[in-house]
Amino acid sequence: MGFPNNIFNSHPKEDGDFFLGIKRILGFKPKKIYVYKKAFMHRSANKKDLEGNPMNYERLEFLGDAMLGTIISHFLYKEVPEGDEGYLTKMRSKIVSREHLNELGKDLNLIHYVESRIPKSHFGDNIHGNVFEALVGAIYLDRGYDYCEKFINKRVIEPYVDIEQLEGKVISYKSLVIEWCQKQKKNFNYDVYDDTGNDVLKHFAVKLSIDGNVVAKARATSKKKAEERASKRAYFALQNKMDKS
Amino acid sequence: MGFPNNIFNSHPKEDGDFFLGIKRILGFKPKKIYVYKKAFMHRSANKKDLEGNPMNYERLEFLGDAMLGTIISHFLYKEVPEGDEGYLTKMRSKIVSREHLNELGKDLNLIHYVESRIPKSHFGDNIHGNVFEALVGAIYLDRGYDYCEKFINKRVIEPYVDIEQLEGKVISYKSLVIEWCQKQKKNFNYDVYDDTGNDVLKHFAVKLSIDGNVVAKARATSKKKAEERASKRAYFALQNKMDKS
Repeated sequence: MGFPNNIFNSHPKEDGDFFLGIKRILGFKPKKIYVYKKAFMHRSANKKDLEGNPMNYERLEFLGDAMLGTIISHFLYKEVPEGDEGYLTKMRSKIVSREHLNELGKDLNLIHYVESRIPKSHFGDNIHGNVFEALVGAIYLDRGYDYCEKFINKRVIEPYVDIEQLEGKVISYKSLVIEWCQKQKKNFNYDVYDDTGNDVLKHFAVKLSIDGNVVAKARATSKKKAEERASKRAYFALQNKMDKS
Repeated sequence: MGFPNNIFNSHPKEDGDFFLGIKRILGFKPKKIYVYKKAFMHRSANKKDLEGNPMNYERLEFLGDAMLGTIISHFLYKEVPEGDEGYLTKMRSKIVSREHLNELGKDLNLIHYVESRIPKSHFGDNIHGNVFEALVGAIYLDRGYDYCEKFINKRVIEPYVDIEQLEGKVISYKSLVIEWCQKQKKNFNYDVYDDTGNDVLKHFAVKLSIDGNVVAKARATSKKKAEERASKRAYFALQNKMDKS
């Protein structure tokens, strides 16, 4: 008698690492951890679920792709009340483009959790976006629509989606800030440093100072992104002054 | 003094009819009635909202189309655990096909509520599907995801979605039932009658009897659909007997 065998067969250390890693990415506690296991299972691992169906992330990718499209649609609907159907469709396809999803997945370092029999270096770029979509599907199955929306707000919309930039009106906030400083004969300085913190991912932190005063701070997974993000914050903080100049 | 003017300018009778009609279609009380007004506003009506943006159903259609796709995706994900991504994508596109959405909108007689300056007889078939999508978008904005899912279950999935039929495995349950009766030398009878009830829509009710016993009943917006639906119910009720024969 005693405990069922599989308690001793499980790998508490590895499972704990997976749980903590996922929790960090999600920003909340995962409940049905097996759904997330599936979201990171490549077909080459050749696993089956309890019903004998292939267990890999491809079906979750289908679900997550749809969820993501809906949540972005709702965001655009609210955010751009003057945009017609054609505009909304075009903006959505920019936000959920293959390149963008791959970038998102890469920034979250999702490939770190992928189980496969193929060496990770052999995967193309698309695995990052595919696993990102599967993760969205997993969140929906685990915690429902509202958590899914929260996650997408936090991980997609807030850090990456800028309507003005998507419309092509603003190519780079950094160049706007620099241009303004030069015109106003002000000194500016981007102060960048590595910042790993408690995250799995390496981050860059940047402070933007103008005439010696820190006007904005930002963190991102690349130096370029952190600078751009800080510039955007500075731009909005300084907008009044900039528009008048 | 007294009541503000717009109380006397509103049309309580018409608004009440609209409210009741929408409530009947939804199966629950609408809260933000103006969102539904928008869902039925054709661009030819040339209305503007309070912000001066065009007020018609086209943006809601964009939103509803996405919601519908997601809810159908989730349904298929649960319903067909053995279906791969390609299968799920194919089945979803059958369910949300233009023809199917037009049929849904027509069955609900949504065009009855459309406001436009174009005579309704001049619209093509697509208006039915477009307004149906807009209605889904309105439900989402009014009551959120769960109500939207409930509505789609009730108005799309339960009455119309049959996986076996979509897969092309079963063309018609009626022909399966007739074939079985003939083989078993049983008499069958489809007894059809008009049934308007309290609904805005005309319905047909059908009783299917085999050897004088009623084996299934169904209601639908056409005779053919009611017969098919009753046959499907009979098929599942008799499946054991049918499979053995």
